Formats: sequence, C-alpha cells, structure tokens
Amino acid sequence: MGTTQLESVPEPKYWHLKTVLSEALDSEFSVGEILPNERDLAARFGVARATLRQALEQLELEGRLQRRRGVGTTVAPPRMGVAVGSEQHTWPGAAGDAWQPVDCTVAAPPPAVAGVLETGRNEQVHTVRRSRVTHGHPVAAELLYIPDFSVPDLSAIDAPSGAARARAVLRELQRLELEGQDRAVELGSARAEDAKELDRLPGAPVLVVTTRFFAEGRAAAVSVATYRADTCRLTFGDSGGVEIHHDPERRAS
Amino acid sequence: MGTTQLESVPEPKYWHLKTVLSEALDSEFSVGEILPNERDLAARFGVARATLRQALEQLELEGRLQRRRGVGTTVAPPRMGVAVGSEQHTWPGAAGDAWQPVDCTVAAPPPAVAGVLETGRNEQVHTVRRSRVTHGHPVAAELLYIPDFSVPDLSAIDAPSGAARARAVLRELQRLELEGQDRAVELGSARAEDAKELDRLPGAPVLVVTTRFFAEGRAAAVSVATYRADTCRLTFGDSGGVEIHHDPERRAS
Repeated sequence: MGTTQLESVPEPKYWHLKTVLSEALDSEFSVGEILPNERDLAARFGVARATLRQALEQLELEGRLQRRRGVGTTVAPPRMGVAVGSEQHTWPGAAGDAWQPVDCTVAAPPPAVAGVLETGRNEQVHTVRRSRVTHGHPVAAELLYIPDFSVPDLSAIDAPSGAARARAVLRELQRLELEGQDRAVELGSARAEDAKELDRLPGAPVLVVTTRFFAEGRAAAVSVATYRADTCRLTFGDSGGVEIHHDPERRAS
Repeated sequence: MGTTQLESVPEPKYWHLKTVLSEALDSEFSVGEILPNERDLAARFGVARATLRQALEQLELEGRLQRRRGVGTTVAPPRMGVAVGSEQHTWPGAAGDAWQPVDCTVAAPPPAVAGVLETGRNEQVHTVRRSRVTHGHPVAAELLYIPDFSVPDLSAIDAPSGAARARAVLRELQRLELEGQDRAVELGSARAEDAKELDRLPGAPVLVVTTRFFAEGRAAAVSVATYRADTCRLTFGDSGGVEIHHDPERRAS
C-alpha cells in the first residue's frame, strides 16, 4: 500500500531537477565553488529559469547551496554541528558562558516575551545583546531580556551603556539561583541587525532558540537566540550529557 | 554605540512593509481569515508586487501567514508547541511511543545515515515509516533506519510488508537495550511523500530532527523526523524533565 501511495504522488518538475542538480554538486563541484549563472544552468538542464530557481531555493534550504551577496551561488560546506544544550545556553554570565556581551539597552520586549516574563504590555526590561562565536565565525546573535525584578540591586549610574553595562546586568543576574530552564526551536527570519552580525541578508531563514530561565519560582530571564539556518545544525546531547557530532563525515576540528 | 550601529543598518523596503503588515494582521485580521489578493494589497500599501511578495514570504517564514493550495494566503494560528525530548522521541516501539508505524521497506539509506550506522555505501536497511499526530493533526513524518545487525532474529516471512511488518521490526528492535540517544535539529525542505502526509507542498520548509539511538556500544537506529516549520515550535524540556509551554498566550488545550 505504502509503495502505491508514494508512486501516486505527483513529483513537480523542479523536484526532479533538484535531485539531478544535487548529484551534479556531489560529482562535479567542490565546496566553495561558484555555480554557473542561471541562464547557463537552465540551458544545460533544459528547464525554464523559474524551474531552475525553485530547485536552487530547495537546495539552499537544505544547506547544499549558499547565496552570497556580490559573490553568487556557491556550493556550501557541510553544516556545522552547534551544541545548544544547557551547557551552551547556561545561566547567562556564569563561568564558561559561550556568549559575549555586546551591548545593553532598556526597551519594551516583544509581546510574546512580555507574556513569559509577566511584565506589563509596555514595561521596559534590560535588553542585553550577546553574540556566540564558534570556530572563529559568528553563529548566533542573542537578545536577552531581563526584567528589573531579576536585578533589583542594579545601580543605574554604574556603567550606563554598552558592553560594560551588559556585564554589570549579568553580574547582578548571577545573584539569583537558577532553578531550571527550557528551550524551544522554531523557524524565523533574520532581523536586520541580526542579519548584519551573522553576515546574512535581512529576512534570511534562521533557527530561533528561545530559552526561559527560571529562578525564585518564575521566569527570571528570556533569551532569544538566532542561529544561521543555512550553516548550522543544532545538536542536543543526551540527558546524560553525551555530546557526539551528528555526522562523522562532517566532523569539524 | 549599539544604537548608532542599528540606525546605520539599511532597512530594505519590504522589511518596513513587513512590520506594517504585521501590525495590520494584529489589528484588522483574525486567525484563518483570507488576505486580500496581492494586487489589492500592493495598491493599499503603495508598493510594488515584488516588494509585497517578499514581505509576505517573511511573514510566512515567521509563522504569521500560511499559504494553502487552492485557498490563498491566510492568517496563521499561533504555532503549536511540540515536545521533542527523549520522552517523545523514545526508543522506537517502547510503550507510550507517540509514533504510529505506517509502512516498512528495505532500502539503502541516504549517505549521511549510512555514515552514522556505519553500514556499507549501498547496504540496505529496514526503513520504517511512521507518523506523529498531535491534537488530531499530523505534525511529523519519520523515516526510521534500522540495520540488520540491530534486529538479527527478524524473520523475513512473518509480516513481509506494510504496518504489520513495521511493528514486527520495532518489536525485534525492543530486544536491544537503549544506552543513550542524541538529537540534532536543522532546516530542510519537505520531500514529496512527507509533504503529502503533512498537507504541504513539496519543498516547504521543515524542521528536520535527527535522532541517533545507541545500543551495544554503537548507533543501532537513526530516526529522521520532519516537522512542519510553519505550524510547529519544537520544545525541549529541562534535563529535570520539566516541560512547560513556551508562551502562555499560545497555550493549546
């Protein structure tokens, strides 16, 4: 029965082309190589430009191709495994934290974050901007929302802005004892400032990891981290703490 | 400094439109409502069709809009939190398994899966197809790859195909004792048969969850599960097993 079902699925033209292109990438191209232009590719495979473009988009979603501004379409390197367990999304400011504080402002968070923090509709919170660098490349940009009640003794005059202010806020946050955290992953599109930091165009697909940190019986901070969806594969270790690279062929040093 | 940086980022036209559209969705439209056609929308906001389309694509990536075949573009309901912890991606066939076996074939797995299982390049493995249903909707389609060495006593004649065969394979797999598992999440595009099962067009963005199950000191099975990226937010509980809905405003009954 299953086989019959599969066979009855109409396969769009670009889908077949995608498979053919994917095989060509394996056999004829190497990582980083620039693909011929769309006109030449369409001619070679005997398809319309629109069909070609759909197939290229698929391959981009799957991480096989990268479109880079001013460069063109290149063959992507294998995706990098980026661990996003509790160790990497640790209580912000803890020793061994993988994130670098960049900036700190005070602003009203998005409605969904305000809902989690149970702050009022337009109540402002400390918004720490951090970035995560792996193998020398920025892999994620984060906005960390910390309400006043989580840092009650924060002095307003000490380090009023910038990275120094961010560090001061995180230092205060560390006074609370972390009781637990949970995480959600969803698809999003890169906001302009994240895109710039991640070297992508605004609107590029990203994986958004939202972490809720609990202390004193409530959500004490919320982290919204944006990972490049084209180059990253997010890995979650076992509860035993085992952390193994997903694909041995793709092991990064 | 941070503020200056933000202000110097050139904001594409569709980006501004996206923000304006997003506000209009909040204030003027309700969930499930069909949007006016592109021509009318472009006229209303005074933008080119191409700009409008880019903005709509962004909103679709962010889960605010859904494009449905034969219906048009509708306002999406809030994304559903789908737990993908060890409890939901349990040792396949265990009691309380959230997955329903659909079919079972024998085929050579994709190269990446063969690499993890350390099977030969064209060595065939049992390929169990399963689906996961939440709140009455299919949320994920899975291909579960099980090499012969994990089910050595499987009889070839007992239940040669279909769901019965799948159950027979899983029953045999349960003889092994699970030693650990790990998981990776990445962006992908829906294969034709997954797309059909998930009621999406082939190539639609999906979240691919790859789980490696370890037994007897090696990878004994690999699950590649495809979740709808438009409607699902994948949730990971604390190692303590706490599993709380991400966003209280979006709690589904």
